[in-house]
Amino acid sequence: MSSTIGTLFKVSTYGESHGKAVGAIVDGCPANISLSEADIQPQLTRRRPGQSDMTTPRDEADLVTILSGVENGKTLGTPIGLMVNNRDQRPGDYQEMSNVPRPSHADFTYQMKYGNRAASGGGRSSARETIGRVAAGAIAEKILFERFGTKIISWVSSIGNIDARNMTLENLTREQVDANIIRCPDEGAAAKMIELVASTRDRKDSVGGILTCVAQNIPIGLGEPVFDKFEAKLAQAMLSIPAMKGFEIGSGFSGAGMFGSQHNDPFVQKEGRLGTTTNYSGGVQGGITNGEPVVFRLAFKPPATIGLAQETATFEGDTAVLEAKGRHDPCVVPRAIPIIEAMTALVLMDFVLRQSYRNF
Amino acid sequence: MSSTIGTLFKVSTYGESHGKAVGAIVDGCPANISLSEADIQPQLTRRRPGQSDMTTPRDEADLVTILSGVENGKTLGTPIGLMVNNRDQRPGDYQEMSNVPRPSHADFTYQMKYGNRAASGGGRSSARETIGRVAAGAIAEKILFERFGTKIISWVSSIGNIDARNMTLENLTREQVDANIIRCPDEGAAAKMIELVASTRDRKDSVGGILTCVAQNIPIGLGEPVFDKFEAKLAQAMLSIPAMKGFEIGSGFSGAGMFGSQHNDPFVQKEGRLGTTTNYSGGVQGGITNGEPVVFRLAFKPPATIGLAQETATFEGDTAVLEAKGRHDPCVVPRAIPIIEAMTALVLMDFVLRQSYRNF
Amino acid sequence: MSSTIGTLFKVSTYGESHGKAVGAIVDGCPANISLSEADIQPQLTRRRPGQSDMTTPRDEADLVTILSGVENGKTLGTPIGLMVNNRDQRPGDYQEMSNVPRPSHADFTYQMKYGNRAASGGGRSSARETIGRVAAGAIAEKILFERFGTKIISWVSSIGNIDARNMTLENLTREQVDANIIRCPDEGAAAKMIELVASTRDRKDSVGGILTCVAQNIPIGLGEPVFDKFEAKLAQAMLSIPAMKGFEIGSGFSGAGMFGSQHNDPFVQKEGRLGTTTNYSGGVQGGITNGEPVVFRLAFKPPATIGLAQETATFEGDTAVLEAKGRHDPCVVPRAIPIIEAMTALVLMDFVLRQSYRNF
Amino acid sequence: MSSTIGTLFKVSTYGESHGKAVGAIVDGCPANISLSEADIQPQLTRRRPGQSDMTTPRDEADLVTILSGVENGKTLGTPIGLMVNNRDQRPGDYQEMSNVPRPSHADFTYQMKYGNRAASGGGRSSARETIGRVAAGAIAEKILFERFGTKIISWVSSIGNIDARNMTLENLTREQVDANIIRCPDEGAAAKMIELVASTRDRKDSVGGILTCVAQNIPIGLGEPVFDKFEAKLAQAMLSIPAMKGFEIGSGFSGAGMFGSQHNDPFVQKEGRLGTTTNYSGGVQGGITNGEPVVFRLAFKPPATIGLAQETATFEGDTAVLEAKGRHDPCVVPRAIPIIEAMTALVLMDFVLRQSYRNF
Repeated sequence: MSSTIGTLFKVSTYGESHGKAVGAIVDGCPANISLSEADIQPQLTRRRPGQSDMTTPRDEADLVTILSGVENGKTLGTPIGLMVNNRDQRPGDYQEMSNVPRPSHADFTYQMKYGNRAASGGGRSSARETIGRVAAGAIAEKILFERFGTKIISWVSSIGNIDARNMTLENLTREQVDANIIRCPDEGAAAKMIELVASTRDRKDSVGGILTCVAQNIPIGLGEPVFDKFEAKLAQAMLSIPAMKGFEIGSGFSGAGMFGSQHNDPFVQKEGRLGTTTNYSGGVQGGITNGEPVVFRLAFKPPATIGLAQETATFEGDTAVLEAKGRHDPCVVPRAIPIIEAMTALVLMDFVLRQSYRNF
Repeated sequence: MSSTIGTLFKVSTYGESHGKAVGAIVDGCPANISLSEADIQPQLTRRRPGQSDMTTPRDEADLVTILSGVENGKTLGTPIGLMVNNRDQRPGDYQEMSNVPRPSHADFTYQMKYGNRAASGGGRSSARETIGRVAAGAIAEKILFERFGTKIISWVSSIGNIDARNMTLENLTREQVDANIIRCPDEGAAAKMIELVASTRDRKDSVGGILTCVAQNIPIGLGEPVFDKFEAKLAQAMLSIPAMKGFEIGSGFSGAGMFGSQHNDPFVQKEGRLGTTTNYSGGVQGGITNGEPVVFRLAFKPPATIGLAQETATFEGDTAVLEAKGRHDPCVVPRAIPIIEAMTALVLMDFVLRQSYRNF
Repeated sequence: MSSTIGTLFKVSTYGESHGKAVGAIVDGCPANISLSEADIQPQLTRRRPGQSDMTTPRDEADLVTILSGVENGKTLGTPIGLMVNNRDQRPGDYQEMSNVPRPSHADFTYQMKYGNRAASGGGRSSARETIGRVAAGAIAEKILFERFGTKIISWVSSIGNIDARNMTLENLTREQVDANIIRCPDEGAAAKMIELVASTRDRKDSVGGILTCVAQNIPIGLGEPVFDKFEAKLAQAMLSIPAMKGFEIGSGFSGAGMFGSQHNDPFVQKEGRLGTTTNYSGGVQGGITNGEPVVFRLAFKPPATIGLAQETATFEGDTAVLEAKGRHDPCVVPRAIPIIEAMTALVLMDFVLRQSYRNF
Repeated sequence: MSSTIGTLFKVSTYGESHGKAVGAIVDGCPANISLSEADIQPQLTRRRPGQSDMTTPRDEADLVTILSGVENGKTLGTPIGLMVNNRDQRPGDYQEMSNVPRPSHADFTYQMKYGNRAASGGGRSSARETIGRVAAGAIAEKILFERFGTKIISWVSSIGNIDARNMTLENLTREQVDANIIRCPDEGAAAKMIELVASTRDRKDSVGGILTCVAQNIPIGLGEPVFDKFEAKLAQAMLSIPAMKGFEIGSGFSGAGMFGSQHNDPFVQKEGRLGTTTNYSGGVQGGITNGEPVVFRLAFKPPATIGLAQETATFEGDTAVLEAKGRHDPCVVPRAIPIIEAMTALVLMDFVLRQSYRNF
C-alpha cells in the first residue's frame, strides 16, 4: 500500500468501503487558513452516490468531521484529520462473488498481492476510497483560489461513443457542469449520454467515458524537473484514480500527428506576462507551468462490476458464470468529476509549496 | 528540481547537455549481481545521437564508466555511480537564441522558475539528461530478465499521420525493431515514416509520433495502491520524459467508448496461473499487475526546436522571428525507445523490491 | 509539520491535545496479521495519564478504535486507521498563559513558526500527540514478536540525581518494570525516586530523568547505511519525542573515553551464529544490527510547565512572572516508557520491511 | 542502502574507499548562487588524511570537480554533480583480514546484510564515504552564511579521558580550532591530547573522543514537528557518521539531573527578538529553533581497526587472532570536524528550504 501523496502538502488516506470510516490526514497545510467542514462538504456532496439514477443507489450523506488541525476556525499548521463515517454497509450483497474474481476488477490482484481481500464492496479499490481525496482536495482548492484565483473545472466530454462538442472553457462554471445529471455542458450531447447510460443500466451493462479538466490562474513555475515534472505528477495522480486508462495533456495523442511548425505555441505579450497564442502545450513546457491554462483529458473504462452474465473462472481456474448482484454504477464518469478536481488541486498545492523555496 | 525516482531502487540523475558529464547514482541495487559497463553500454549506444540521418549529427560515443558500487564484477549493494563524459560541446550554436525563448521549449519556464537557465543546449531539459536514466535502466533490466525473464520491447507505431499496423507482440525482438532506422517493425509503414522524417528535416520542420511498449513476464502483484498504483507510477515515469504529451495503458482512450461486457477481460486457467483471454486491462487491475503483458502507448509531440522561421516574442515581449541554428532532431521518437524501455525497467524494478516485503 | 515516519511501514499521526480526537494511520502493514483493539490497548493504558499521583490527574480512558484496514480480525494490507477520542478537555486551564510563552516550552517557537498556536494544552507539542505513536507501535511490536520473538523493554534508570544500579537485562519483564509506579526495577532506587518526584511536585517544580531501553531477538542486517543507519533512524525517532535531550547507544558517551582494545567487541561462536562477548557496540556495527541486543539510553529534561513562579517575558518582550495553573506532570519519564517502546518497534518494523528486499 | 538525505536540499552520495571515485549529487540547490570548486575545496582539505601524524598516512589530494549544475560560476538550480577521484588505492593492505571480521567494524554486518562486502578498506563504511558529505555540506554552508550569517564551528572537547575546559563559544573561529593538530582550542588540554594520541598510536591502539559543535545565527522556526523535529533530524545526521555512539543537545544527559526551575531558559528581550538568558535548550524548543545558538555534543568510539593483537573469531566461528596491518587512524575525532560541520549545514539548509513554504 502507498496511501500518501505529496512532498510538502501531504495527504494520507484510509478506509475501506465497508469499514467504520474513511478519511484522510492532510499534513503540511499552512497555518492561519480559515477552514471549517462547510468548506469541504460541497465537493463531497457532489461526489456522493445516490444523486440520480445515473449512479449507485447506495445512500450515504458523507458528512465530514474535522478531527484535528483546526482551532477557532483557523488551521493550526498541524495535521488536519478528516473523517467520514460509513453508514450504509451491506456486506451481504457481495457474498456470491467470493469465489469468482470479477473480470477486470481488483478482486484477483488484491488476492494475489495481499493473500486476502476485503470480503465485500471492493475494499480499498472501491470508489469509496476517493472520499479522503475529495475532502483533502477541497482544502487545497480553497487555498489555491484564495491565493491565486485558481479555478479547476472538469466536465464530461464523452460517454461511450457520444462526444460532446468542444467547449469554450474560459467562463465555464461548476453550476453549468451540474446543470444536467451527466455533467456535460453540451446539452444536446448530454441528453444522448443520459439515454445511453439509462439503456446501459437497463441491460445490466456499464459504459466508459472521457473527462476534460481545465485549471486556470495558476502560478508560472510549478513542476520539478526531471522526475516530478508537472505533467508527470499530474499523470500519476490521475492514473491513481480507479478505472482510469489514459491521460493526455494539451495536444495529447493528436499532437503526435503534428509538425513542429503547427504545434509550437508562439509567445506573445499578455497582460504583464509572456503568454502563448495557442495552447497545444496544455500549460506546461519542460515540465513546468507557463501560466496558460492546464488542460488535460482522461479516459475511464466501463466499470467492471456488471449484472450481465459473464463467462469467467473461479480462483481455482474452474469455468464459472458470474452475474453481479448488488448496487453498481452503470457509469462512474459524472461522479468522478469532484475526484479529478480534488486530485488536480492536490498536485497544484504541493507544487506551490515546493516552489516557495525560491523565497527562502 | 527533483532528480530522484524510486522508493527502494532509487535513481538520481545529474548533468546538463553542455557540462562536463552526465550520469546517475543507483541506490538500492541488490548485492551480488554480475555487472560491468558492457551490460549498460548497448542501450546507451541505441540512444546516442548520430546513428542515422534521422537524428541529430551530434557525435558522442557516450561511453559509460562505473565509478562505484561494483567490485570484482559484482554489485556490492552500495550506490552505483555512473558517468558519461560530454565530449562534443558547442555552446556557440545556441548563442542567437538567448533573448528569444523557443516556442514550446523549456527556455521560458526554466527562466521563470530558476531565474536563469543553461545558456546552451537546453541544459537539464535536453535529451542528454536521459543518459543517466538509460544507464540506470539497463541495470534494472538485467536484473529483471535474470530473475523473471522479463522482456521489455518498445517500437514506433506512428510518425506524424503514418500508422504502423498492429503488431503481434509475442515474439517481437529488439533486433526486429532495429532492423530499420525508424524502428518500426512494419516495413511498409517504416519506409513511409522514413520518407516523412526526411522531408520534414529538409523543410527544417519536426514531427511527432507514437511509441508502443510491451513488458512481458512480470510478476503478479506489482503496484502499491492507492497513489502508487502500477499504472500511476508508470505514467509519472513516462510523462517525465521530454516531449511526452500522452499515456494510455491497455484499451486506453478507446476503452472509454466501450461497454463493460466488451471490455472486461474474462479469466481462464493458463499454465499454472489464472490469466485472461483478452487484455484490455493492459496487464493491471486495481493498480496491480495481473501477470498479463503490460502494454502502453505514448504520444510524443514534435520537437520544439526547428529551423523554420517562427513569429514569436522576446523575453521582454517584443515581436521576434526565430530560426533555430545548430543541430536538431527532426524526430525524436526512434531514439526515445531505449529511454522508454529504461523507465519501464526502473518502475518495474522498484515495484519488485517494494513487493518483496511480502516475504519479510 | 512532518507527521509521517517510516519508509515502508509508514505511520502518520494527527491530533491536538484539545481537539476532537488523536490517532494515526498505519500504511504498509502486511496483510493477514491477526489484529484487534485488544492488541493495541494495553500500551495505551500504560501511557495514559492519571495512573498514579506521579502523573497528571487528567482522566482519559484512551480507548482506541480501529477505523479501517482490518476485517474479520485480520489486517487487509490496507491502511489501518486508529482513533482515540479526547474526552477531558479543559481549555480554560491554559488561559492565563496566552500572552506569556512558557520558558523552554513550544509556545514561543510554534507561534514564531506557524504564526499561531493551539490556544490550550500545547496542541501538537503536547504529550497527547504520542497516543498515535503508541497505538501504531503496538501493531509493530505484535508483528515483531510473532515473527522474531522480539522483546522491547524500557525502564527508568535515573530520576534527577538518583541512579538505579545496572540491571541484568536478560530476563527483565514489563511486569517487573511496572511493579512500582516510577517503573524502576531497582526497588531501593525506586523508593527514593518516588520520594523525589513527590517532593518535586509539592514544590510545584518538575524533574528530569534517564530511560534505558533494550531490544532483544532482532534480525541481523537491519539498517540502511549510510544516512539511514540503524542507530541514525533510532536516534531520530527518539529525539522526536517531547522533552528528549540526548541519545546514546551501547557504550555511548563513556565509549569516547575508551581505547579500541577495550571497546572492541570480540567475536565468538554463539548458538548457530557469530556473536560478541561484550556489547559496547549496543547491537550495531557500521549502522547495521549484528544480532546482539540493541541497548540505548535517553535523557529527558524536566517538564517545562511548572507551578513555581518564573521571571520571564511576554511575547512583546515585557518582563512577566509566570505561575502555570492547571494539571502538569512533575516527571514524565515513567509514562514515556510505552512511547519509547513504540518508537523502537516502529523503527525496527520499518527496517525489517526494508531489509526484506533481499528475498526479492 | 540509503544514500540520500534531505527533503528539499537532497544529497545523494556514492563511492567506496577503493573504487574509482567518491562524490555526491546535490539536488534542490537554489539557482543563481555563486559557486566554484574553490568554495568546496577548503573543507575537503581539512578532512583529508595525511595532514599530520595524528591521522592515517594515506595521501590523497582529494580535489573536487563539479560535473554539472553550475554554469558561468552560478548554480543553475539543477543537480550539482561532485566528484573526487580515489588515487591512492592499496587493496593489498587488507588482504589478511578477509576471513576474520574486524571486531566492532562493519565487516561482519555488511557480509551478513549484503552477502558480500568490499574486499578492502571498509568500502562504504569507510571514512572515505564522508567526502561526498563534506563537499555537499560546503555548498550548504556557503548559502547559509551568505543569507543568514550562519557560522558553524566544531572542536574537540575530549580525547580519551582528557577533557578540554568549557569554551566561550561566541568568538571562536576555525582558525583557532586548527591552531593545533588535535583541533582543541584549549592549548593545555590539546598538548595532553596530542601526547595521548601519539602514545596510543605507538601502542597500535586507538582512542575515542568527544566533539562539540555550535551553530550561530540561524533563523527562528526551523524544524518540522513531530517526526522531523530539528533535533531529531540533526541526531539522525550525526548518528549516520561512522563511529558515532552518542548525541546530546543543550543540557543533554546532564539536563536529566536537573529541576525544571533550574533548566527552564527564561525569556528576555534581545536585539529585536525574544531570546533566552540561558541556553539549556540548546537552541530548540518543541523541535523548532528559537534563534539561540544550536549547541550539541557527539561521542566517537575509538576506531575499530587496531594493530594490537585481538582474540576473536573467523566468519566460520573459529577462534582467531587479528593484528590489522595497513594504515589506520589512531583517533578520528579531529578529522571528523569538517564532517560534523557539513552534516550540520545540510540539516540546516534542508530545514531552511522546508520552512520557506511560509511565503508560498
